[in-house]
Amino acid sequence: MLVVMKAQATQEEIREVCATIEQLGFRAHPLPGAQRTAIGITGNQGEVERGNLEALSGVAEVIRVSKAYKLASREVKNEDTVIRFAGTDAAIGGGSLAIIAGPCSIESREQAFAIAEQVAAAGAQFFRGGAFKPRTSPYAFQGLGVEALVIMAEIRARFGLRIVTEALDNESLDLAAKWADVVQIGARNMQNFSLLKRAGRLRKPVLLKRGLAATLEEFLMSAEYVMSEGNYEVILCERGVRTFVDHARNTLDLSIIPAVRRLSHLPILVDPSHATGKRDSILPMARAAVASGASGILVEVHNHPEKALSDGPQSIYPDQFARMMDELEQIAPVVGRKLPRGIRVEAATE
Amino acid sequence: MLVVMKAQATQEEIREVCATIEQLGFRAHPLPGAQRTAIGITGNQGEVERGNLEALSGVAEVIRVSKAYKLASREVKNEDTVIRFAGTDAAIGGGSLAIIAGPCSIESREQAFAIAEQVAAAGAQFFRGGAFKPRTSPYAFQGLGVEALVIMAEIRARFGLRIVTEALDNESLDLAAKWADVVQIGARNMQNFSLLKRAGRLRKPVLLKRGLAATLEEFLMSAEYVMSEGNYEVILCERGVRTFVDHARNTLDLSIIPAVRRLSHLPILVDPSHATGKRDSILPMARAAVASGASGILVEVHNHPEKALSDGPQSIYPDQFARMMDELEQIAPVVGRKLPRGIRVEAATE
Amino acid sequence: MLVVMKAQATQEEIREVCATIEQLGFRAHPLPGAQRTAIGITGNQGEVERGNLEALSGVAEVIRVSKAYKLASREVKNEDTVIRFAGTDAAIGGGSLAIIAGPCSIESREQAFAIAEQVAAAGAQFFRGGAFKPRTSPYAFQGLGVEALVIMAEIRARFGLRIVTEALDNESLDLAAKWADVVQIGARNMQNFSLLKRAGRLRKPVLLKRGLAATLEEFLMSAEYVMSEGNYEVILCERGVRTFVDHARNTLDLSIIPAVRRLSHLPILVDPSHATGKRDSILPMARAAVASGASGILVEVHNHPEKALSDGPQSIYPDQFARMMDELEQIAPVVGRKLPRGIRVEAATE
Amino acid sequence: MLVVMKAQATQEEIREVCATIEQLGFRAHPLPGAQRTAIGITGNQGEVERGNLEALSGVAEVIRVSKAYKLASREVKNEDTVIRFAGTDAAIGGGSLAIIAGPCSIESREQAFAIAEQVAAAGAQFFRGGAFKPRTSPYAFQGLGVEALVIMAEIRARFGLRIVTEALDNESLDLAAKWADVVQIGARNMQNFSLLKRAGRLRKPVLLKRGLAATLEEFLMSAEYVMSEGNYEVILCERGVRTFVDHARNTLDLSIIPAVRRLSHLPILVDPSHATGKRDSILPMARAAVASGASGILVEVHNHPEKALSDGPQSIYPDQFARMMDELEQIAPVVGRKLPRGIRVEAATE
Repeated sequence: MLVVMKAQATQEEIREVCATIEQLGFRAHPLPGAQRTAIGITGNQGEVERGNLEALSGVAEVIRVSKAYKLASREVKNEDTVIRFAGTDAAIGGGSLAIIAGPCSIESREQAFAIAEQVAAAGAQFFRGGAFKPRTSPYAFQGLGVEALVIMAEIRARFGLRIVTEALDNESLDLAAKWADVVQIGARNMQNFSLLKRAGRLRKPVLLKRGLAATLEEFLMSAEYVMSEGNYEVILCERGVRTFVDHARNTLDLSIIPAVRRLSHLPILVDPSHATGKRDSILPMARAAVASGASGILVEVHNHPEKALSDGPQSIYPDQFARMMDELEQIAPVVGRKLPRGIRVEAATE
Repeated sequence: MLVVMKAQATQEEIREVCATIEQLGFRAHPLPGAQRTAIGITGNQGEVERGNLEALSGVAEVIRVSKAYKLASREVKNEDTVIRFAGTDAAIGGGSLAIIAGPCSIESREQAFAIAEQVAAAGAQFFRGGAFKPRTSPYAFQGLGVEALVIMAEIRARFGLRIVTEALDNESLDLAAKWADVVQIGARNMQNFSLLKRAGRLRKPVLLKRGLAATLEEFLMSAEYVMSEGNYEVILCERGVRTFVDHARNTLDLSIIPAVRRLSHLPILVDPSHATGKRDSILPMARAAVASGASGILVEVHNHPEKALSDGPQSIYPDQFARMMDELEQIAPVVGRKLPRGIRVEAATE
Repeated sequence: MLVVMKAQATQEEIREVCATIEQLGFRAHPLPGAQRTAIGITGNQGEVERGNLEALSGVAEVIRVSKAYKLASREVKNEDTVIRFAGTDAAIGGGSLAIIAGPCSIESREQAFAIAEQVAAAGAQFFRGGAFKPRTSPYAFQGLGVEALVIMAEIRARFGLRIVTEALDNESLDLAAKWADVVQIGARNMQNFSLLKRAGRLRKPVLLKRGLAATLEEFLMSAEYVMSEGNYEVILCERGVRTFVDHARNTLDLSIIPAVRRLSHLPILVDPSHATGKRDSILPMARAAVASGASGILVEVHNHPEKALSDGPQSIYPDQFARMMDELEQIAPVVGRKLPRGIRVEAATE
Repeated sequence: MLVVMKAQATQEEIREVCATIEQLGFRAHPLPGAQRTAIGITGNQGEVERGNLEALSGVAEVIRVSKAYKLASREVKNEDTVIRFAGTDAAIGGGSLAIIAGPCSIESREQAFAIAEQVAAAGAQFFRGGAFKPRTSPYAFQGLGVEALVIMAEIRARFGLRIVTEALDNESLDLAAKWADVVQIGARNMQNFSLLKRAGRLRKPVLLKRGLAATLEEFLMSAEYVMSEGNYEVILCERGVRTFVDHARNTLDLSIIPAVRRLSHLPILVDPSHATGKRDSILPMARAAVASGASGILVEVHNHPEKALSDGPQSIYPDQFARMMDELEQIAPVVGRKLPRGIRVEAATE
């Protein structure tokens, strides 16, 4: 259910409606819009009685939400969610094209700084790097942990890049939330509901990657898990699904981009590195992603991919990244987006 | 095996090598290139003796082809295949972007002419229309047959559009080859090897759609079936594969575009209509296809899709098609292509 | 639509109803049952007027068929279709378990006879062997053609085994129908609608294999294509579908067995050879197929699989086949079936 | 690497080898066999020097393990792992067929006891019931939690059934390990590596379900995560994978059964309830699973499935369960297994 407040409703009236909803045993989610505020109602003990709420002061109407996901749906919030980062003009969602680039794993301070410098020079606003790696084998390199987080915090201070890193469990979630700007939940954890709920209690944006066999509804339901706990800054990310196709590591499903944009207000990025697993296919798929309407790109860049501790074959070289940026800058206007180039960050200007 | 002739080899020497190959019980495929001619050798009784050929006059070297497909591979022919149409500047492959548009089925002369006029005005060079329809149900509309072919021939004469139509079997193949400019083999017939061989004996370009569960190698092997019979003008077309994904009718696999371009010299188009089955997703996927490097687009356009006898929900309106053309025109230069607009055809100027 | 005749309806009344249906521009399919005859009505120009038929003499009722497939559905014919072979007690469908065994390709008279002798000795009723092979590559062994058909006819005369062989196109269909007892349409031709219709005009049973990406409804619709032309003896065959799974060549989908049995009266076999592509998995999957309720097994047996011209790794040895027969004989009674062992054929006793 | 001890090696020698391995910075996993003990070596800092170990007293040889999974492979341990439960003759693995039955969720004491009584009467040895439910929607019933665990402990005391229940996260894992006999890790957590490692530190058997898009190697690698921490009692469970197939909720992949049995010594069960999602298909698939060689069945049974709070349509009735047991008892001997009927448990006889 969704309570739509009148345009002139006061903050007091909004608080009153929320309090009533909570007294009824449900959870209230005030969602301010350009014209007026809506209040999403969630909970798992049936439906709230509509009459109880329609009579309250400041309420325009009470609407049933037809989708299984509520807070993630355009029914509940029509305007695009735009996630902004204090002290910078970087944004994810809306009219800007967000570029997140960096190595699969942080391997050393030198490696990370070298790559960060190059992606910043080419115009990226965000730096990605793995500190905690979900590896298929228990015997593979599992990441540098906190040491990597510290390195990335230095990169933020030095280059003004906002930091995106993955969390695997309670401990790494708390650490990532402390050190990074965006916390990533990986494809293998897309239905780790316990982790999703904990991410919902953070006050940091969550980048949620699509599971290898997730339907669109399951993907949005996982976003809903985060949002139902009060964290509305969820960024979706398509990274390919698993099919019979053998010429790419996974099958990039770009048709999800227009589908998500119809059904949800959340931004959706594309990760062409994991989607293809092949360096030569990354630029074509990055261009295609932007042309299809994606909110941005998450891409692996490495200065020596042949020596990378993980994901070398799917990392592009810094000069390919620079070329990618030029190409995306040309395509962005066709879909009504702008690629901000050059970082204008307060911290960076000091 | 591939015989690479010397740059200065004479026609007589080429004929001599071909004759020797045929005498050995194999088939010779002379493939003229910009610098020199190569001669592909195919056959199913083992491998030709290299020494027999290397000694012949005009032969530079004899190379083993590592792929299962030979004539379709870049190993055998490095330059892009470009298919041209006499009396027009329309082309498929190389630097031009080919746009093939029209209704799923030809339903009447009026319908076909109305749509043809609009797609021609928006700049399409090719008109597609179904005369023989492969329908899942034996009780569904099966197409107007020859009557549809005659209507499309009139459309060519009137608007200068080149005609693309599907063949299902021997009879419709002969008819399509007689009346149309490009003969389409549909996804369900991609491994109808008997039909492929017969299409290989035509002297009309063949547009081969990828099967719903075809791997890249199988797709190229089916092209090879056509080429092995001597018809080298094969146009590939990605139209989505079948996966668990339920937000689109099929899953458009754009990662095949860079993969095909690496491995084969054949042009590859994308059909966003069959790939998505949803009108709202067609423009995003058409843009993505061009951005990924596809040689062109095959799209269903209908003036009254809600009344179409087949595929209404996946047909776009003529004004959407015009908008698509504008968008593709902007993206094409990023991938080194040009979208020719306006038809300049000798026949049409009479 | 389905016309259900009264139990005591005469042949004359049945003929009269059929004639009326045909005069209305539809096709009538008389389907005799144990209690009474039903008449299926098919055609692609809308629905017949119910009133016109209900008034006819001998008609009990006229029923709308809810499924897209009509003649293949249990709604139209509730009793299992059982396909019998004159002069033998071999049967496909109903309570008997049909075993079809033999090499992928007929390679020589010696090879074929050696295998036939062994599978007959182990109790198979049917012999399979490829004369016309649908090969992914145009350069691979394509089968011995008519020579193979002649060899198999000799095998029938010698061992009493009924012959199953695949047809690829018009020519091979006519030849297979002439020489064999059951004509197979392969997975790659499951939606070769032109071939299906031609098979529908044969008076030989048709074994239809499921396509690699076919849904249950598409599979039954392809059976309907054959039946709509008047050939009601269709045998379905599950042979694995294509998925991401990489430990078997295809993914055997046994859940289709109970689903087909609910929806259709047609028998359904399982081919564990193509489904798995691995010798070690064939016996387990054959047992599983029978336990799931399949009407029988189609399996590749070769006396020297390591030398087979095609499909060697997925062929079992004759002694494995004999063991398989013993195991299936034990499982069959659990699902209410009987495995006839030893051939009792009139022709063979001469 | 694997150290194979001599048949007559002493416990002291085994301890010495383990200590040496640990001093080298690796982890030692002593694996006692019928003839002799093997010691698996795992770790993620490269390979141990073979010479260091071969010289130790009691060592027969040091072998390189070719698979990515080590402890789960037949190379390291050839004999089937059999998991036994103190004070009962129930077992999972080896020659006995294990049957685990019960409702999706524990809904109340009455419901749980009624179902437990019926499945015990029919001969099940294990009772399954959900206390913590991983639900796609945050607003769906999430399970009774500890209350459900207490109910199941009472069921064990009353009927002698061993208890299987799912854990989702750290908290529920610790609780499940405390109250239940087998801890289940669900399909959505198959690659929740943090949870797997924690389960590896339990001293309770872990039932690991295959992920919806997991390859065989990934499945065994997840088992390896548990084993690498020292818990070698891992039970695999196939429950269907996600494909395009739409006549069942998932596609049961029985071909994984012979593949797992070739590669691993771990037992593998089949869950026909989640695999099909359809009551009518459960018995056929349970029979097929046993016929294919599975170590047992995990099945949802509910006394009032139409009123179940979760998974009603895929639960069978108690009388269907009893029939299933009769059928499986007949099939088991064909694959060299025995279905123990009737519970002979010390606790139950008091």
